[in-house]
Order: sequence, then structure tokens, then C-alpha cells
Amino acid sequence: MDNVRSYVEEHKDRFVSELIDLLKIPSISADSKYKNEMITTAEAVKTSLEKAGCDLVEICETPGHPVVYGEKIIDKNLPTVLVYGHYDVQPPDPLDLWNSPPFEPVIKETELHPDGAIFARGACDDKGQMYMHVKALEYMTKTNQLPCNVKFMIEGEEEVGSEHLGWFIENNLEKLKNDVILISDTGMIAKDVPSITTGLRGLSYMEVEVTGPNRDLHSGLYGGAVGNPINILTKMIASLTDENNHITIPGFYDKVEELSAEERAKMAEAPYDEEKYKNKLDINDVYGEAGYSTLERGSIRPTLDVNGIWGGYIGEGAKTVLPSKAFAKISMRLVPDQDWKEISELFTKHFESIAPNAVNVKVNTHHGGYAYVTPIDNDAYKAASKAYEKSFGKIPIPQRSGGSIPIVSLFEKALKSKIILMGFGLDTDAIHSPNEHFGIWNYLKGIETIPHFYKNFADSQK
Amino acid sequence: MDNVRSYVEEHKDRFVSELIDLLKIPSISADSKYKNEMITTAEAVKTSLEKAGCDLVEICETPGHPVVYGEKIIDKNLPTVLVYGHYDVQPPDPLDLWNSPPFEPVIKETELHPDGAIFARGACDDKGQMYMHVKALEYMTKTNQLPCNVKFMIEGEEEVGSEHLGWFIENNLEKLKNDVILISDTGMIAKDVPSITTGLRGLSYMEVEVTGPNRDLHSGLYGGAVGNPINILTKMIASLTDENNHITIPGFYDKVEELSAEERAKMAEAPYDEEKYKNKLDINDVYGEAGYSTLERGSIRPTLDVNGIWGGYIGEGAKTVLPSKAFAKISMRLVPDQDWKEISELFTKHFESIAPNAVNVKVNTHHGGYAYVTPIDNDAYKAASKAYEKSFGKIPIPQRSGGSIPIVSLFEKALKSKIILMGFGLDTDAIHSPNEHFGIWNYLKGIETIPHFYKNFADSQK
Repeated sequence: MDNVRSYVEEHKDRFVSELIDLLKIPSISADSKYKNEMITTAEAVKTSLEKAGCDLVEICETPGHPVVYGEKIIDKNLPTVLVYGHYDVQPPDPLDLWNSPPFEPVIKETELHPDGAIFARGACDDKGQMYMHVKALEYMTKTNQLPCNVKFMIEGEEEVGSEHLGWFIENNLEKLKNDVILISDTGMIAKDVPSITTGLRGLSYMEVEVTGPNRDLHSGLYGGAVGNPINILTKMIASLTDENNHITIPGFYDKVEELSAEERAKMAEAPYDEEKYKNKLDINDVYGEAGYSTLERGSIRPTLDVNGIWGGYIGEGAKTVLPSKAFAKISMRLVPDQDWKEISELFTKHFESIAPNAVNVKVNTHHGGYAYVTPIDNDAYKAASKAYEKSFGKIPIPQRSGGSIPIVSLFEKALKSKIILMGFGLDTDAIHSPNEHFGIWNYLKGIETIPHFYKNFADSQK
Repeated sequence: MDNVRSYVEEHKDRFVSELIDLLKIPSISADSKYKNEMITTAEAVKTSLEKAGCDLVEICETPGHPVVYGEKIIDKNLPTVLVYGHYDVQPPDPLDLWNSPPFEPVIKETELHPDGAIFARGACDDKGQMYMHVKALEYMTKTNQLPCNVKFMIEGEEEVGSEHLGWFIENNLEKLKNDVILISDTGMIAKDVPSITTGLRGLSYMEVEVTGPNRDLHSGLYGGAVGNPINILTKMIASLTDENNHITIPGFYDKVEELSAEERAKMAEAPYDEEKYKNKLDINDVYGEAGYSTLERGSIRPTLDVNGIWGGYIGEGAKTVLPSKAFAKISMRLVPDQDWKEISELFTKHFESIAPNAVNVKVNTHHGGYAYVTPIDNDAYKAASKAYEKSFGKIPIPQRSGGSIPIVSLFEKALKSKIILMGFGLDTDAIHSPNEHFGIWNYLKGIETIPHFYKNFADSQK
């Protein structure tokens, strides 16, 4: 793989323009309005895999959005790498905060990205990082250096909880058989501080509806006498965390893995500057669970965040209404050993139990996923670490992420193989936010690093 | 005025169809999109006053929506009645809860209204009740029975706090000179229980904005470590009332008028059935300040209601976002002696003081108004009471309303005359709600009652 850097250098403009074409398609899985765009995107991914050298590529229907499957099997006796990624993206709103339209990609230089970054929804999460693997395959096939078999499983429901991927895997266990699963849907600490994600948080995503009177009322005639579902919802949500920002749902912490003082001390060694962190976000102070550092709050501790809330009159001006209903979307990030299904039930039971008689509540579980932790003493991790060392000239730091890829723990259970989370994004890429972007340097560095992993891993299995 | 009932009977179909034409114009003062419809409505009101017999009618510009002024002066030595009403209406949303479009009036029979009710935004509040006075004037002029002078002041900003009416009054004190102010913008207890409103609550309407990070963040990467403006807003709002639903803003109750045991006992005599009340609203229980009855909570006690709340992702499906901002519209109903400007300041200072360091808050005052209580031992009240007795065959009950007409107390201060609140609507008319309606029986009864008031009042001033 010694000429990978020069190959990337030679083809980088095409690599960028191909990704830009893919980013132009609004593949928003959460919004049924975009069903057709989801198909168009799946077809574009299919074509790219064929061009990159896959022998077999198919769009596999599921009860939801389809999965794109591709493979190149060079020798049944060689090990097989399964690449997972997703072609769906987060909804782009609030649109008015984007400096350029989310599905009209533009390249802009930034302080952090003097070589330019691609600004578009999905630039990093996950079209950009997924496409690195397509281009890495292109390099290995065009230069006849593919050292093992490769399979791709690119889904379209990651941003809505991979609802049907479990179903797809259960129905394709043989087809998906592999020796290691490679995923680029995470980040690294900094451009000059490469890292490999060794842990992910689980997720339980709930939606609640609080209903008071059977119609919107005049807040003058009924205010003070009839339960206002918004006032009551705020009290219910506020009570879900105490003054130390501990979550108050009974049983919530029962299975939370407590890290040893040694492990916490090791975490604290990761480079982190709280002043810089606060300045980047324009906040005067951080905010979280008492007794834990910012890094710990964002990785090894469970959380409860309201992702959306609405009710009553939200238009221009004033309306003196006591509304009939109020709603909220609430998600909890979970840590190893917390069972998201159990947590969703605990949340539901608790939320129903704290509702005053004056209202009725409905609680729905949107989706969820298990947390995941990977050991660093296996062949796959070592192969990845060496690959980063080769392309970055530095040994990467193993790092626990606060994010969730709900499907990862299922991969391990169902496919019995280790997962390597090789992420090349940065915290500042604004994934899930307006002005999401992906540094061209990071994109190309990913394409350069991946083939080294294939070689190192194949060698380790001889 | 003895033939008023027969006159109304003879012309009722035209009275209804004229009102329906007025209701077709969407005069939504809160939404600047409807600026032209506001003008069209003002012109329609002007025409109707001219037809009813006013000698002078003019559309008076203000810094906001115009005021329609009309007058018929028959003799400078006779007393003058000033009629106040408003031609603007509340925004109709949520639109999906209307059984027929809010600005396409339909007549439907209901259990309570066997003679039919007009369903449309503004049917009762206040186009319908305002138009009763136009038709009452028509009767008195066409039958040469107008016993005194009359002036009309119909504004277009009542639903947004009558922002510029104070300015208009201050600049037209001579023109608006009168002996009594007559307003129909309230309700009565029941069709068979006529009542006159003797008290109104004041209002302070605030809007708050809570800002956390400078952009929407990924709730996995930042959740638990960065203050979530929605979580924090719910805690802040929840803390504004305690476990007894007492408002916690320091100084909020300092000037609240406490009623005597006698007054409270008298209130308790008003016909009220809590089971019926709960059933009408489909609620299992009422909800409010400990130590007070439902009637008291809705009239003699101040309140704090969230009229609207929004933040984060409120679309279909799920988005794991930690938003940059969260908002709420919060209004407080005030009772006699509470100064809405002082309360707005207390709210602002308190809300800013309880914000954690992790967020910034902005608090804006939309508008407000003073509470009002009228005595029942003056000529004007007696004239009104006798008028109801004549048309309903029953002595009306004096009643305190929970609603607010911010401008009423200003009338008394600026124009030095008593205000009579002669309302013919019902609690069930769904004003400010979807499917607002006004019973045709109530509408015609109002037209029948008003001329008797003119006669009684004119006689009392001889």
C-alpha cells in the first residue's frame, strides 16, 4: 500500500467532486417526504460500489428504507472485512442558521481547514466517511492490492434508529459473514491527535404528549383553574433530574458501570482545554452531573436531554391561550450494561406516575440502542492502530465517545465479530447541526489510512 | 323601546347575514401578514356605522392598526354613551382542530343553541358582540327613539394589548368625552342566568428566550456536559410556581387584594357544578392554587400560564439535537392593585436571576393591562341591570371575570367615566379556541337589551 498517498494525491479532485454529487441528494430518513430521494441515494451508492470494483452490488428492500449491499470476494480462504455505513442524513433544520443551503455543497477554507472543508448535510455524518471506504476500495482494486475479501452494508435508517437493520442482518447472516466490521461514523480528538473510538453510549429516544382540556381554552377564563399542559410538562421534565443533575427515574442507575479511579485518571490524560471548549461554544460555564468532569459527563455517564418541545401558540405576537396539548422529544444516552428497552420502560412507568390527575400523558418509544465498548488488545484494534501510525505518524489514542451507533452492539451479538470504529471527523464538524462540514484533509487522510488497515489485518490473520 | 323585540324579530335574518359578512374578513392583528385585511375590516365597520345612523364616521390612523370612530350627537345637553369594541380577532390556529374554516362562517344548531350558532373566529370575540351595538343603534335611529348621544370607538389591537389605544385616547380626550362607557366583550353565566361583569383581571404577557451553546449540537457528543436550553427552561418555568401552585416570584403577591370571608361566601353562591365543568373539558380533575375554589382561582386570584413553548426539533421522527435556543410565551393574570408594569419588572428580574451560568436569557414584555372592578351602586350599573331585567325577565348577577380587557382601567383613568361590561357570550363559545361560535339567540338578545340601557341611563340623568 506504499503508493496510496500518491494515488490519493493524484485523484483527490475527483474524490471530492464525487462526494459532492452524493451530498446533493437530500436523503432525510426521518421525513417521509423524502422517500424518493432515499432511493436515488441508494442507487448512487450502488453505482459507486460497482465502479470501485465490487463484483456484486444489490439494493436490498427492507420494511423501511433499503440497504445497499456490495461485495468483492477474491479468495474464500482469506479473511473478510465488512464495512458498515449509512447514506441517510439528519434533518437539516433550523434552515435559517445555515450559511449555505444544506444540499448545495460548497467548499470553504476555515481556520481549522486551510485546505478547505465541504459544507453540506451529511458531509461528515455519514456520506463523507462512508465514501472514504468506497474510494479506499477503488485504490486497492485498481492497483491490485486488495489483500482480503470485502463486503459493504450501507443502510438508510441510522439517523432514525436503524429500525430494520436488525431484521436485515438476521435474514442475511450467511451473506454478511465476516472477520471484522469496519465503521467510520465517529470522530477523532484533533487533526494532530488521531484517536480510535473504543466506546459508544446507548440511546433511548422517547416522545411524550401531555393532554389537559379537550380544546384550547382562553387563559383568562380558565387560567389558574384548569391544568395547563405546558406548565405541567415543564414541572414533569424538570423533576426528571435533581439539583445535582442526577436522573431521578427509579432504577435508572442500577446497571451503570462505574469506572475505577485508575480508568478515570487515564481518561483525564486526554488533551482537553475547558476554556477553549467553552469559548468555541460561547458558553460561560459547562453544565452537568455533579462529581464528574466534562469529558466523563460526555462519555462514561448516562444523560437525559430534551431534543424538542412544543405546545400552545408559537407564532408571532401574543395569544392568550391555555392549550389542550404539549409535547416533548426526550432522549437518554446510556452506558455499558444499561438495557435501553428496560430504560425506556422505566422512563414510561415513571413519567406516567408523576402526571397529576389534571392531565393525561402518552409516552412513546421512538427507538434505542445498546452501548458498546471494544477491547484494545485484539488483532483488529492493533491493525487499525498501526494504520493510523503509518498515515498520521502517531500512535492513535483509544477514546470513549458520547455518541451512539445503536446498531454496533447488535453487530457483535449477531455477527460474532469485533467492530473497529475508525473515525476521521472532528467535534467541530457540526454534525446534526447547521453548517455541517468535513475537512478535505480529513476525508483524504481517511482514504489513505483505510488500505493500511486492510493490509495489517490480513497479515495478522495469516 | 317597547317594540324592540318585534323589530329584532323582523330583521333578524339580515342582522345575522350582515355579521357573517364581517366575519369573513381575517382581521388577525397579531400577524402582520393580515395588515390589508385589517384595513378592509375597519372600512366595513365604518360603512355599517354610517348605515346605522351615525352622522360622522372616520377611520383614525394610529402608529398601529386604525381605530374606527363614529358618533351621532342629537343634543349637546343630553348624556353621551361611548361604545367600545374591537374588530380584530385572535389567530385561529391550531387550524386542524376547526370543524369548518375559521373565516368561512357557518350556522349550526347545538344542544345549547337550538336556534343555531354562528361558527367563525371572532363570532363572539368581539365582532359579534360589537355588532350588536351597531344594530341597536340602527333600531333606535330608524324608530326615532335614540334618547341620548352615542359615540363608537372600535379598535383593531385589542388581541395584541391595545398597544396604541392609550395614545389615541390621550390625543382625542375632547372627542371621546362621555358619561358612560358601554362594552360587550365579556360573557354571562348562562342563557337563563344573565350576569353583568363587575371585575376583570389585569395581564402581563412576557416572552423569554434561553440560549445555551452558539449552535445546535449533537446530543451524543455534548449531551450531559453542555447546558441544554430546553432542560434548563423547563426547570426555570417549573420553579415559577411551588407545590401549592403559588407563584414564587418575590413580591408578586405584595399588592394582591384579599377578599373578605363575606365576599368569598357571596361568590360561592353563583351557580356552579364542578362535575359538569370537568366533563365539559374532559378532565379528571381541576388544577390550581391550594386554598381557593375553582371560581376563585379563575377570577380573584392571579395566575401564571405558559401560552406557548418551543425549542429543538419538533418535526416528524427523531433528531438527537442539543439545541442552541428555547423559547416560551408566559402570561400572568393580575388582580386589583397589582401593577402590571411592576409585575413585568419583577418577573424579568426574577427570571434573569434564576438562570444558571450555562445559559443566557432574554426577557421581553409583550404587553399588559390593569385589573378593573366596578361598583354596582351607580346609575350606569342600575340602568344595565334594569335593561337585562326587561329583556331576560330576571335580575342579572354581578360577576367577576377572569379575563382581561387591558384598556378598561385606562378608560376610567383617562375619560373619568364608569364602564359597564354588558356581555352576552357564554364560556362555551370557545373564544380564543378552535370552533369559536356565538349563539344567534344571544346575539339577538344583546341587540334587544342594549336600547333599554340607553333609555334607563338617559332617564337617570334627567
